[in-house]
Amino acid sequence: MTVPEKKILLIVMDGVGDRACPELDGRTPLQAVDTPNMDWFVSNGNSGIMDVISPGVRPGSDTAHLSLLGYDAKAVYTGRGPFEAAGIGLIGKRGDVAFRCNFATVDGDLNTLDRRAGRIKAPDTTDLVKSLSGIVIKGVEVTVREGTEHRAALLLRGPGLDSRVTDADPHNNGKVLESRPLVPEAALTAEVVNEFVRMSYDKLKDHPVNKRRREAGLPEANILLPRGAGSFPNIDPFPEINRMSAACVAGVGMIKGICGVCGLDVIDLPPACTGGFGTDVVLKMQTALRTLKDHDFVLMNFKSPDVCGHDMASAKKMSAVRNMDAAMKYLRENMPRDLVVVLTADHSTASSTGDHTADPVPLTIYTDGMIMDDATEYSEYGCAKGRLGRIRGHDLLPICMDLANRAEKFGA
Amino acid sequence: MTVPEKKILLIVMDGVGDRACPELDGRTPLQAVDTPNMDWFVSNGNSGIMDVISPGVRPGSDTAHLSLLGYDAKAVYTGRGPFEAAGIGLIGKRGDVAFRCNFATVDGDLNTLDRRAGRIKAPDTTDLVKSLSGIVIKGVEVTVREGTEHRAALLLRGPGLDSRVTDADPHNNGKVLESRPLVPEAALTAEVVNEFVRMSYDKLKDHPVNKRRREAGLPEANILLPRGAGSFPNIDPFPEINRMSAACVAGVGMIKGICGVCGLDVIDLPPACTGGFGTDVVLKMQTALRTLKDHDFVLMNFKSPDVCGHDMASAKKMSAVRNMDAAMKYLRENMPRDLVVVLTADHSTASSTGDHTADPVPLTIYTDGMIMDDATEYSEYGCAKGRLGRIRGHDLLPICMDLANRAEKFGA
Repeated sequence: MTVPEKKILLIVMDGVGDRACPELDGRTPLQAVDTPNMDWFVSNGNSGIMDVISPGVRPGSDTAHLSLLGYDAKAVYTGRGPFEAAGIGLIGKRGDVAFRCNFATVDGDLNTLDRRAGRIKAPDTTDLVKSLSGIVIKGVEVTVREGTEHRAALLLRGPGLDSRVTDADPHNNGKVLESRPLVPEAALTAEVVNEFVRMSYDKLKDHPVNKRRREAGLPEANILLPRGAGSFPNIDPFPEINRMSAACVAGVGMIKGICGVCGLDVIDLPPACTGGFGTDVVLKMQTALRTLKDHDFVLMNFKSPDVCGHDMASAKKMSAVRNMDAAMKYLRENMPRDLVVVLTADHSTASSTGDHTADPVPLTIYTDGMIMDDATEYSEYGCAKGRLGRIRGHDLLPICMDLANRAEKFGA
Repeated sequence: MTVPEKKILLIVMDGVGDRACPELDGRTPLQAVDTPNMDWFVSNGNSGIMDVISPGVRPGSDTAHLSLLGYDAKAVYTGRGPFEAAGIGLIGKRGDVAFRCNFATVDGDLNTLDRRAGRIKAPDTTDLVKSLSGIVIKGVEVTVREGTEHRAALLLRGPGLDSRVTDADPHNNGKVLESRPLVPEAALTAEVVNEFVRMSYDKLKDHPVNKRRREAGLPEANILLPRGAGSFPNIDPFPEINRMSAACVAGVGMIKGICGVCGLDVIDLPPACTGGFGTDVVLKMQTALRTLKDHDFVLMNFKSPDVCGHDMASAKKMSAVRNMDAAMKYLRENMPRDLVVVLTADHSTASSTGDHTADPVPLTIYTDGMIMDDATEYSEYGCAKGRLGRIRGHDLLPICMDLANRAEKFGA
């Protein structure tokens, strides 16, 4: 008898894990909110905690998602630039070097006045990017693509590139930095970056958009500051490795970029699903369930808890949790049979530190026919009482594949 | 906002883990003793169990401490000799080969009569060691340094040495063994060891100290028996790897040696802190807290529970536990804020077997702002009820670094 294969829905509640918050009487946002629908999955599934990379290692969202997709992040991660670029549709090939960029405001001496140019957004950025098209520096093709708000990506393509260069972005309101090669082979790349930064200033400083912003008293976006150089990695496609079709339902560019580079179909979301705090979470869940009709595996990402953690706003994070619980209610009531559902996070984002921490994330796996355990509450400690123990991020996918009756036998 | 970094106090209760003792109605010494102060850390921190090397691997104190310091013990451990030598101030360099030695009593046919020469100690050993100074064999410089009681260390320095040789020490009252090379490259080293053993007998057998001991009816210390050959390892310094200043507060030579080789400052202890059963544990804790004033990380080691385990003395081990609980009381009442405290062991030492076992050790981590868990009792099983699950020894330091807000992010 052939056992039917199940499909897999991996729900990543970005940064939902937290530490004890004094303002919540020592509870975490997950502990402080009543989440009957998440808890339903806990009560009917199996739970545990997970070190997404390994114990004590603070994951980035990029490395964490690679790990959740079953990759060895330490082996395949080449820096954030390529994923950021891919997330806004700038998917490069091996040998290309990509950077994240900010539109920023500088004075005539290239001192940074505002690293985000007043959080400038489209359509201003669309016009500005157009003026940077078709640039070639020392034989290297330069492509700029706008991202959300002040963000953009820069892709360099040509012979002799190497991503081991320092950032031009000073990361605070200091003087724009010269990119330096960290190894001799990266000298050309650093030269191209520095020339590009100067060129962006020349082309943007008197651009009509900036004249208009100057008159309106808004910070000008008169330079582009690259950072986070990375080579496009050579990643084996997820659908080939795992022999299943796969898609990603996410609003955030970088997550879409990672999934795109890994060969997942990146699903277009309705405008109401921004990836941020105001996302229509039920609509997003509907999109995920629809996507599962013609895909075996869907990764979906809710970004808002991470944003609240970075903002050190535990009360707002509680709202984000309440919101996601509404999405879980929809899932409970509308999910197909023969589905493996995973509720987890890519990392913890502590409201008390405003950044990612290495605290293990809560994990619940639900499907038909699981052995019951004692865990009943979706939270950092509630899940620790479950049957799964403490696992590592890159072991999650194999566990799900097995529960979905898709795992190969090792041996006979 | 920059989150303030915390300091770390890693308390190693050497060999405190145990197995069920029939004479304690199936309890362990930790379970049989009321430890309100250790338990306070459990109730207010997070607990779990730890395989210091990996499950089922019985750690030595040396490999265990390397693992607790975050090293991959399997990669850096080169034998106990170098650490033992370093512990008594004989810190070698790469290429040197070190051995542990015992002063022993042999008859004229080199049959061992007492492997510890009646636990001879200073000043007798001091005089004996002097007669072994300035030895050169086949171009190899030979240095002997006395340790505690009958123990000494032997350091060989010269070209062409290799530590892969067998022990001259028969490890029981048999004939002194010929050291044999385990690989052809170690032939010279084995020859030097054998020549040194013969030479030690020649120089010691009629030494005035031994004449006096013979007359007093005491076992003579008429030979030195090397064992545990090891090359001096090439270990990256702990303070550099972890970007924090670090010190060790321990009474036992080998622990001091390991910490010294790893680049920790080895703190001198008052004479009342011997490392053994009679140590003034509160004075030792005071020393540790004082050391934390100008160090970011302190490893402290309480040796007595291990000694009791080796002696198969569970009742005495209970006293050692009671004693250490008094030190924890002092810690509770006097510790600074912004400290991460770890209560754990380097291995279990079973009172029923008299040796180290691979049973996972209890682990509690305390700092401000931890998510509460249900564990309330510091013991082998009491800690297993906590939130940390089951971790490995070399993951402990990264976890502490993260809780101390000192971990680097992997990715973005």
